Amino acid sequence: MLSRPDILTPADGAAVAVENSAASGPVVLVCEHASLALPERAGDLGLPAEALESHIAWDPGALAVSRLLSQTLDAVLIHQRFSRLIYDCNRPPESPAAMPEKSEIYDIPGNRDLGAAERYARTAALYVPFHDSISATLVAREAAGLSSVLVTVHSFTPVYFGKPRAVEIGILHDSDSRLADGMLEAAEGGPFRVERNAPYGPDDGVTHSLRLHALPHGHLNVMIEVRNDLIADNIGQGVVADYLAVLIQNAITACQK
Amino acid sequence: MLSRPDILTPADGAAVAVENSAASGPVVLVCEHASLALPERAGDLGLPAEALESHIAWDPGALAVSRLLSQTLDAVLIHQRFSRLIYDCNRPPESPAAMPEKSEIYDIPGNRDLGAAERYARTAALYVPFHDSISATLVAREAAGLSSVLVTVHSFTPVYFGKPRAVEIGILHDSDSRLADGMLEAAEGGPFRVERNAPYGPDDGVTHSLRLHALPHGHLNVMIEVRNDLIADNIGQGVVADYLAVLIQNAITACQK
Repeated sequence: MLSRPDILTPADGAAVAVENSAASGPVVLVCEHASLALPERAGDLGLPAEALESHIAWDPGALAVSRLLSQTLDAVLIHQRFSRLIYDCNRPPESPAAMPEKSEIYDIPGNRDLGAAERYARTAALYVPFHDSISATLVAREAAGLSSVLVTVHSFTPVYFGKPRAVEIGILHDSDSRLADGMLEAAEGGPFRVERNAPYGPDDGVTHSLRLHALPHGHLNVMIEVRNDLIADNIGQGVVADYLAVLIQNAITACQK
Repeated sequence: MLSRPDILTPADGAAVAVENSAASGPVVLVCEHASLALPERAGDLGLPAEALESHIAWDPGALAVSRLLSQTLDAVLIHQRFSRLIYDCNRPPESPAAMPEKSEIYDIPGNRDLGAAERYARTAALYVPFHDSISATLVAREAAGLSSVLVTVHSFTPVYFGKPRAVEIGILHDSDSRLADGMLEAAEGGPFRVERNAPYGPDDGVTHSLRLHALPHGHLNVMIEVRNDLIADNIGQGVVADYLAVLIQNAITACQK
């Protein structure tokens, strides 16, 4: 099994990527499920290729949309460089979903009965550097006199356990709904089917990054979920990113009134 | 509440201390519960002074014995500089005992209903640096051609929930009992009441450090528990440390046969 400090080798590179770090716009974009890459030492976790490329490994399209948003909004973007299968950075170490033994229809053999050393290695090498990077970014911005609006970008599968999902864009929030309220208001009568806390919400444990970085500091925040069939290509990604940018900007303006 | 990266201020200093780091003896000593200090920002966690000085905050005498062992055995010593009340470094983040809401007879108000941000801050600032330091020490020793024997040093209260404990020294192990077997054999007929996996054992979740650092790598390992009334002063600490040093050395020799 993997063992710290070997979980990431030099060939794997860093766990976290920060893009457009000198951006001066108000938004800080976070993409926890940006990548389907696995550390070399992790092998394939015993999964077939179709699973390793599916939504259980990453949020297809989310990084592409985040990058477009980063340009449009002049926003810093922080994303995890490895698959949620090895560590889901939107979950704390105490959550069974952090290193899941099962995801949707797939058992994950490489995550079965993980020992203390392996759990520690993944937590220390992937989870902590990721959230430290977000913290450091927010602290540095505050020191520079910039306020921050935290926006996490996700995608979801159109069919889950065989059941189609009608919602197209989910606007998720935890106890602070200010930005989400503004986005939902801005979305009314628009081209997409946009819903609050759908296809899941804070009770499903998905607002961990918001709870870590936004709620304790009073930063405006939201988690965006886009149905991944809408952002499967450049055109869809561009349309959705432009749409989301307008919702975000309108909502920030509304919150500042 | 505390928030990362503020849980430890510069005035608090580092979470981890490494002493005698250039030691060339085979033993690596670890003391997870060395200190009753709390980070300044933690205040008193809502506890009375008697609790903050009691065994629920630290293992009284364990650091003193560890330092004597470090000298006698020419051993590196790694110890946590803050109380187990803020984070118990012998527990993984998924354990309720890592940031306990209750310990023996005391409720710990400052640990009640901890939010995600606070749990993360403690994990990142105290748990991960501590175990990274142990890992780095073990890796550096291996690179230098030194094999390592992991020995963790603890103390326990003579009276727990009002009930006296007769055992004086516990020799605890997880799945690898080689070193513990040797120490128990060496202790037979000696001056102390020495018992295997007492006053608790691996099923109580106390062998986390062994599981993290020794078992995956095949290092000889043991966890020592000394009843704290035996090591309350310099004389007792000296007697027990000398005794333990002999047990450890005999056991290592026996394992090498």
